[in-house]
Amino acid sequence: MRGIKALKKIAFEKKGYDGFLVTNEANVLYFTGFSVRALSPCILVSRTGEPTAYVYSVNYEQVKDEGKEFNVELVKKGENLGAKIADKARSLKMKKLGLDMVAGVPYVADYRQLVEVLKGIAKVEVEDKLVRQLRSIKDQGEIKLMREAGRLTSLGMKAAYETIKPGVREYEVAAQIEYEMRSNGSWGTAFETIVASGVKSAFPHGGCSDRKIKRGDLVIVDIGATCQFYCSDMTRTFIAGNPSEKQKRICKVVKRAQEKALQAIRPKAEAKDVDATARKTIKDTGYGEYFVHGLGHGVGLEVHELPTLSSQSKDKLEIGNVVTVEPGIYMIDFGGVRFEDTVLVGKSKIEKLTNQLYDYNIG
Amino acid sequence: MRGIKALKKIAFEKKGYDGFLVTNEANVLYFTGFSVRALSPCILVSRTGEPTAYVYSVNYEQVKDEGKEFNVELVKKGENLGAKIADKARSLKMKKLGLDMVAGVPYVADYRQLVEVLKGIAKVEVEDKLVRQLRSIKDQGEIKLMREAGRLTSLGMKAAYETIKPGVREYEVAAQIEYEMRSNGSWGTAFETIVASGVKSAFPHGGCSDRKIKRGDLVIVDIGATCQFYCSDMTRTFIAGNPSEKQKRICKVVKRAQEKALQAIRPKAEAKDVDATARKTIKDTGYGEYFVHGLGHGVGLEVHELPTLSSQSKDKLEIGNVVTVEPGIYMIDFGGVRFEDTVLVGKSKIEKLTNQLYDYNIG
Repeated sequence: MRGIKALKKIAFEKKGYDGFLVTNEANVLYFTGFSVRALSPCILVSRTGEPTAYVYSVNYEQVKDEGKEFNVELVKKGENLGAKIADKARSLKMKKLGLDMVAGVPYVADYRQLVEVLKGIAKVEVEDKLVRQLRSIKDQGEIKLMREAGRLTSLGMKAAYETIKPGVREYEVAAQIEYEMRSNGSWGTAFETIVASGVKSAFPHGGCSDRKIKRGDLVIVDIGATCQFYCSDMTRTFIAGNPSEKQKRICKVVKRAQEKALQAIRPKAEAKDVDATARKTIKDTGYGEYFVHGLGHGVGLEVHELPTLSSQSKDKLEIGNVVTVEPGIYMIDFGGVRFEDTVLVGKSKIEKLTNQLYDYNIG
Repeated sequence: MRGIKALKKIAFEKKGYDGFLVTNEANVLYFTGFSVRALSPCILVSRTGEPTAYVYSVNYEQVKDEGKEFNVELVKKGENLGAKIADKARSLKMKKLGLDMVAGVPYVADYRQLVEVLKGIAKVEVEDKLVRQLRSIKDQGEIKLMREAGRLTSLGMKAAYETIKPGVREYEVAAQIEYEMRSNGSWGTAFETIVASGVKSAFPHGGCSDRKIKRGDLVIVDIGATCQFYCSDMTRTFIAGNPSEKQKRICKVVKRAQEKALQAIRPKAEAKDVDATARKTIKDTGYGEYFVHGLGHGVGLEVHELPTLSSQSKDKLEIGNVVTVEPGIYMIDFGGVRFEDTVLVGKSKIEKLTNQLYDYNIG
């Protein structure tokens, strides 16, 4: 089971747990490599023996088929998952059980039951970040998948480049992008495709509507393909027609900010310093107040992961991190410009996982 | 603000709250009708005055632009959202604050802070189901959007029908389906498209891989388009080539189970009785053990909503519910068959929102 050794080392040896319950969907996927998200509601890891996957009847046969390195336990209709896990924890004499997080509505009741049954027997502690921190360092297998996701995303961006012109609707551009990614093997989209044109480009999350693109519009395209659930994330800004001097100037500023930030990325760098590099470049040109979000974020099985690249971040970059670098300038009466690539932090240099082949940047 | 009157009635008049905090992404979307999911982290509703939307800087301008019926409050960098809301609750003299649920990782810390600050001042109680129950009854505006989502989904299923043949890969079928839905105006997909062929069709969540469809394969296609974030959900089972006698027989059983269940749907019906109707039909033919999941679920802004149609459900059907009806038979050494439609519960009859035009059922 991928990563389980590392989990045991941190949770059991360093933090003194003798059991760890993984309930977050992406975390379960990380350890199991299931072919479908959310096949199993949770995984109980103990000091000795194989981990146990808890599964409802709807996915039982599939998990048994895919799960070679763990036990599979069926959760029957009407059975309380929390009580079932508590019984197991008790039988394994666990005294201190770690929990990645409460995963959402269906599990809140189970979680309460778990804590209730284990009262006086074992301590249950929420460790929000532990598995997410493990996941932030990608291994060679993951990097391979993320390279492919990046390649597919770049193909999608090429389709955007070829489709965008005055008169075309935003969702028609999205249809071409997603078809190009999917028919080349993408497993889906990492997030809702953004094709935001004209006034909507002034909003960082401008969506994708039935608006017809007009001549002279800025068009922000923010997309991500996936490969075995590993995400990619890439933004380009196009202009339908000839760019104005102001459009060119702002594009140039954002590009320079991205380049400077990329140069600042190295192992052990403070994430907030990388953010500051881009922010200073934009501020020095007088557009500081229009860069209204953080510089970037980790990417992996989720499109927003650790580390966080922002002015508030306490994260340090490490070899094997995959992060986005995405400065932007958004002006209500003008429109928005953002450039974004997903990059791998290497020992001596970064590797761009998006945009190996094409450069659609304008200006 | 849509639904806010109903929320106030239930939360304030019936349950004695004097404030309600909406944090769940789909719940926020329900009340605000934003053009993008998750534009605002939460909405505070009080007895008097307009609700307040709390917004980070990245989405501030967009929410101000879209939010006509509520106040917009900027959450600044480094500011604690929970403490900010607590201050507001205190200034409004709230004594009992309802909360839809803890929405996930980014908000756990805020939630703790909220409870901490309000200690001794106001009680904070989690009301998991309150808004979800409101959302389970669709109004005319929502029904219109769900009809359109259903129409787009049916177009996608037609594309599947036209694409599936021996030698085609599962993801190539998905690409055609999604392109057809998207280019006709779908906002995206309601969930990860399932195209599960051959042995994979025996798993209810069989995914979508690069497997080449073989002659004689059962192929389960489970898809959903969206319209303004309203979902649809539809499954058909195809056969690449001529069906065997056993394949025909099992398709017939599942179809009959679906028809019987559809006939059992009416206002005030117990959801578990509708499930039992389908289950009995399958059981009577000897395949009972192979129907390994519930009969269906509500659909709306989320693809899985209330009410739940299963043997464990305590829900009653009501006029305005939109639910799936999706019996299936899954046999490891044979494959799987599932038929599913999304239907609206009307006063005197149901309305099928999927498959108005085509019938791809085999057998």
